[in-house]
Amino acid sequence: AVGWTDVDVRAVDTVRVLAADAVQNVGSGHPGTAMSLAPLAYLLYQNVMRHDPSEPHWLGRDRFVLSAGHSSLTQYIQLYLSGYGLELDDLRALRSWGSATPGHPEVHHTTGVEITTGPLGSGLASAVGMAMAQRRQRGMLDPDAPEGQSPFDHHVWVIASDGDIMEGVSSEASSLAGHQELSNLTVVYDQNFISIEDDTDISFSEDVGKRYEAYGWHVETVDWRQGAGESGDAVDTRGQGPYTEDVDALHAALQASRERTDKPTLVILRTIIAWPAPEAQDTGASHGSALGEDEVAATKKILGFDPAVSFPVEDAVLEHTRSVVERGRQARAAWQERFDAWRAANPERAALLDRLQAKQLPEGLEQALPTFDADAKGMATRKASGEVLSALADVMPELWGGSADLAGSNNTTMKGVPSFVPDGKATEMFPGHRYGRTMHFGIREHGMGMILNGIALEGLTRPYGGTFLVFSDYMRPAVRLASIQQLPVVYVWTHDSIGLGEDGPTHQPVEHLAALRAIPGLDVVRPADANETAVAWRTILGSVDHPAALALTRQNVPTFDRSVMASAEGVARGGYVLAEAEGGTPQVVLIGTGSEVQLAVEARETLQSAGIPTRVVSMPCREWFDEQDQAYRDEVLPPQVRARVSVEAGVSQGWRELVGDAGRMVSLEHFGASADYETLYREFGITAEAVVEAARACL
Amino acid sequence: AVGWTDVDVRAVDTVRVLAADAVQNVGSGHPGTAMSLAPLAYLLYQNVMRHDPSEPHWLGRDRFVLSAGHSSLTQYIQLYLSGYGLELDDLRALRSWGSATPGHPEVHHTTGVEITTGPLGSGLASAVGMAMAQRRQRGMLDPDAPEGQSPFDHHVWVIASDGDIMEGVSSEASSLAGHQELSNLTVVYDQNFISIEDDTDISFSEDVGKRYEAYGWHVETVDWRQGAGESGDAVDTRGQGPYTEDVDALHAALQASRERTDKPTLVILRTIIAWPAPEAQDTGASHGSALGEDEVAATKKILGFDPAVSFPVEDAVLEHTRSVVERGRQARAAWQERFDAWRAANPERAALLDRLQAKQLPEGLEQALPTFDADAKGMATRKASGEVLSALADVMPELWGGSADLAGSNNTTMKGVPSFVPDGKATEMFPGHRYGRTMHFGIREHGMGMILNGIALEGLTRPYGGTFLVFSDYMRPAVRLASIQQLPVVYVWTHDSIGLGEDGPTHQPVEHLAALRAIPGLDVVRPADANETAVAWRTILGSVDHPAALALTRQNVPTFDRSVMASAEGVARGGYVLAEAEGGTPQVVLIGTGSEVQLAVEARETLQSAGIPTRVVSMPCREWFDEQDQAYRDEVLPPQVRARVSVEAGVSQGWRELVGDAGRMVSLEHFGASADYETLYREFGITAEAVVEAARACL
Repeated sequence: AVGWTDVDVRAVDTVRVLAADAVQNVGSGHPGTAMSLAPLAYLLYQNVMRHDPSEPHWLGRDRFVLSAGHSSLTQYIQLYLSGYGLELDDLRALRSWGSATPGHPEVHHTTGVEITTGPLGSGLASAVGMAMAQRRQRGMLDPDAPEGQSPFDHHVWVIASDGDIMEGVSSEASSLAGHQELSNLTVVYDQNFISIEDDTDISFSEDVGKRYEAYGWHVETVDWRQGAGESGDAVDTRGQGPYTEDVDALHAALQASRERTDKPTLVILRTIIAWPAPEAQDTGASHGSALGEDEVAATKKILGFDPAVSFPVEDAVLEHTRSVVERGRQARAAWQERFDAWRAANPERAALLDRLQAKQLPEGLEQALPTFDADAKGMATRKASGEVLSALADVMPELWGGSADLAGSNNTTMKGVPSFVPDGKATEMFPGHRYGRTMHFGIREHGMGMILNGIALEGLTRPYGGTFLVFSDYMRPAVRLASIQQLPVVYVWTHDSIGLGEDGPTHQPVEHLAALRAIPGLDVVRPADANETAVAWRTILGSVDHPAALALTRQNVPTFDRSVMASAEGVARGGYVLAEAEGGTPQVVLIGTGSEVQLAVEARETLQSAGIPTRVVSMPCREWFDEQDQAYRDEVLPPQVRARVSVEAGVSQGWRELVGDAGRMVSLEHFGASADYETLYREFGITAEAVVEAARACL
Repeated sequence: AVGWTDVDVRAVDTVRVLAADAVQNVGSGHPGTAMSLAPLAYLLYQNVMRHDPSEPHWLGRDRFVLSAGHSSLTQYIQLYLSGYGLELDDLRALRSWGSATPGHPEVHHTTGVEITTGPLGSGLASAVGMAMAQRRQRGMLDPDAPEGQSPFDHHVWVIASDGDIMEGVSSEASSLAGHQELSNLTVVYDQNFISIEDDTDISFSEDVGKRYEAYGWHVETVDWRQGAGESGDAVDTRGQGPYTEDVDALHAALQASRERTDKPTLVILRTIIAWPAPEAQDTGASHGSALGEDEVAATKKILGFDPAVSFPVEDAVLEHTRSVVERGRQARAAWQERFDAWRAANPERAALLDRLQAKQLPEGLEQALPTFDADAKGMATRKASGEVLSALADVMPELWGGSADLAGSNNTTMKGVPSFVPDGKATEMFPGHRYGRTMHFGIREHGMGMILNGIALEGLTRPYGGTFLVFSDYMRPAVRLASIQQLPVVYVWTHDSIGLGEDGPTHQPVEHLAALRAIPGLDVVRPADANETAVAWRTILGSVDHPAALALTRQNVPTFDRSVMASAEGVARGGYVLAEAEGGTPQVVLIGTGSEVQLAVEARETLQSAGIPTRVVSMPCREWFDEQDQAYRDEVLPPQVRARVSVEAGVSQGWRELVGDAGRMVSLEHFGASADYETLYREFGITAEAVVEAARACL
């Protein structure tokens, strides 16, 4: 038993009152879950998790993920009580401009918050990535330590709500977590039978425990609604018996989950939302609205607080709860000994760790990168990308990734690298082990995206993930969260246009480049040939504070002759003059991306033959180009040259910005079709001739 | 037993050979599944489904959904054998320009194809929508008929692959299908343990049957890999025993699923992909590549076909398989009697059906629409939308919808309308029954999107679905498929900007308007006030061949005084002059959408006071405006007025097209923050002052 004293109980009740007060104070927010989960959150921060509030970035800390991000008070109040720097004034400033306590938890914003959550399912799914990263990091740095003995061992704890469990993204990630036997992951599912549309009965009657068992999880039910001593099965025990917050049973379930070494654990915790508010408990209204002054007062009375006092925290309570700092320091000191011993015994690995923590690229990366000889027949940029990855395998051990079941198509597998799978689950095609490196996400793009975020949040490795560009739609919420969280995730999106051919319109991205460029903080990079692909990868890896997407061709594209054209180094600036106008200052500038740059080059020949000095600009990354100073941008796109043509096999949206009123855009404003790609380009008018015609039209 | 004769067996083997030949002929495609599922597909088209190839749009037909869309030959070959109009030349033209046999099945393109599939999970999830629509249609038109006796009863049959089962969207929809007890739905899951990354063991080891039982489905396993007579449980019986295609067992499972009245059925069919190709069977390569000439020849030999003959179809086989037309005609004739009887007994309902089949709007719709009085304090457009829906409830019974657990926030519930839930699953807040109308999707946006598509494909009703605009990302693949399939689905996306306030950046759409406008064929409609909202709904409902999205505010916006400003009727043209310049021709045009139109109006006052004749254009729908003729567009945005300012609380991408080189855009190029909305607008510079400043800058 956890052995809570009266002060602990008082502290938990204080949490409930603070949650009610904080929402009442600002007038909006989510009090209900923060109240009913007070014992759980308190247990985690005070008794279960290994953490040290005085060193929030301690390498050996457990990770906490509030997948139910709307219940941000669940975390903020514990951060306050534990001593992470939040104070009562921060709770008073909940959800207000500039506060440390925004509506949903935000990483890099509030000390102690490990991840930005709120979009449902995202936290749980990202936590799977954290658990995977922990194992990979351990395998990279300390593979031989006995289980639980390595300084790189830690546990990931998640609080999830009904919404998290209903979202498909958590289904995908949970299935993979079971497959991966992630015993370092515990999810507590707060089953309170209430969501925004009130009683979840209206849309949700599945047996969640059975589903998670089907995924290969260990499932434990702690039923506070049933009354002490009884345990319910499935979802048919609602509201029977007295409500008893059996903290010892919950504690036992959590501790047992930490001890497991075979599979992840789902603890189904049956609660009454907004407990013990007399009227608001067990109602949908308490989920997302202030309780009202009378109800807050009534709750305080029930809990033995003065209804007239807001944000009441007794000194004894705070003193007691902040003692977690001292316990954390002690745990960290014990860990430090193990860590120092590891350091001493593993100088090379320690040097690697130092580099990873400093977020530096390895020496030798530049030299390791392949270059590609000029070749008119050329090479698909997805293939060039695959060669870059294989070339980086040895030099950059922190780089790892995989595909959502399209490894061979996305060229995401580093040659010779083992797969990241539990021992015994490797296949003939993919040998591997628990500390392997090539990830296999299955046909779960959205789960992949969230997992990549979780890996990046763990902080020591650099993840990438691949699928077809058209299926970036499936993972878009994850991409957005990578951008919001400023995570250096790399997307390898191949088959990036109608150039994929026969699979037809459902597989051909048309609007995706525009739609992805619209996401703030995401770099969309579409290299024109093999050498641009290599420089694109190098440039992307050089950034550590935002995600980047590679859009790569299925079909071959010419590898340009760089002895005639400009160096591919220009890629790093987003756009550059690939082929200069001959015979005078340019009369027209042709701007292309990816596989369409060759059309601009071809069109230039025709225009030059007709005596029109024509410049070709390769523009692999609009975002990088926008970051350049005005002088460089004017150098590439001289303001006086108003005859400009863009060519990209997608919607033109966004290109007017560069071509201007006088320019033209060769684009594709409708869905594709099923046919070989040469026919599609011809039939849809994405051709060198169309570029020439457009150029003439704006001269 | 189904009692197949030798001709049936020969026909099934012919299917396998045609699949191998068709892919070999074009050089790419997916032969493996079409070969191994030949008995299943044949069984469905020849023995199980109620359909009439001579009348593909027969109201009483069963629906077939090939969720494993990559295996399009599975369907094309049956359409050929059944007599839907496809011939051998069409199979020869597989995946080529202009053919009736594109890479993935496309509705409206190939007779007999009910739905466009390919993106995995989408077919299965949409099939759930079809099954829901069938129940709603029956409830609307023939609620009192005994189960199975109504002309509006039909069954939905799905073939799903590993990928369909792994995708989160099918998890969401399947959970809801179980909840909804959709006994008119049968999914056959082809469990062949092969996906593109070869052995599915590398990423997939869950117990699918147990998962579907947890959802409330009936699960039946037909294990052809195990050997006849034995049934396996879960996934641990791979490749044991001889491979026996026990068609009778499969037939029995399918027939039993049709008879069930309590829940949907998942038939887990264990197959060996590419059976019986000697080398290619059970390999990842056979999934998505031509087998090679030698392997095709070897397969033909095994099956007793001449290896030298391509596309071999014996007359006796075709004659036999096309007899399904006659059986279909008979079934339809029997149905017609029931239908005629229904017609005679239900003249009012018959009139409704006639109108629905003619895709006409009801009379009285115009009159039913609310108008809203001018009001400076105003009303949120989400609220106006809710009032419109309630006003249409009686006049437009085919209109139905709901929300992904945000009904109260999205204002998607028609007042007084019962919920669509199985009898006994209604809640206190949401009374309803199996034939109800308000849908409850749970926190499953992506599933909702696909379900809406399935409902629209059934063809008699008009569905809408709501969530926050930011979560349009979760359902984006479904929106794209609605556009590709030209389905009149309506999205009610509220909380459409930083105007939602305190929930912060994870909940505030910034890039979404641009990203959605990028999708070809989707209308994005962002009305400025309550009256624009009413006209927007009316205009949207007037279209039947493409989806539309409403972007609606959380916060109040002024209801403009239309006696001073122009009529909201202008909404139907996408953009219109809301407030004309005074004192001369306009010197500047301010263009706003949604909640930012009020800023343009306010800015106009300032500019007019300074003697600058200023026009305000409300531009709720860029797509509708683009459809207007040049004269109208020039009338609204006079070419000679180059001083133009757009204002929208989102990224500016796409607006340069309208404001031109000389114009300015008041926009938001970064993520939002958690605070009250007034503060956010001010801090982020989306203000009337900013509009005035921008206008002055371009004058």
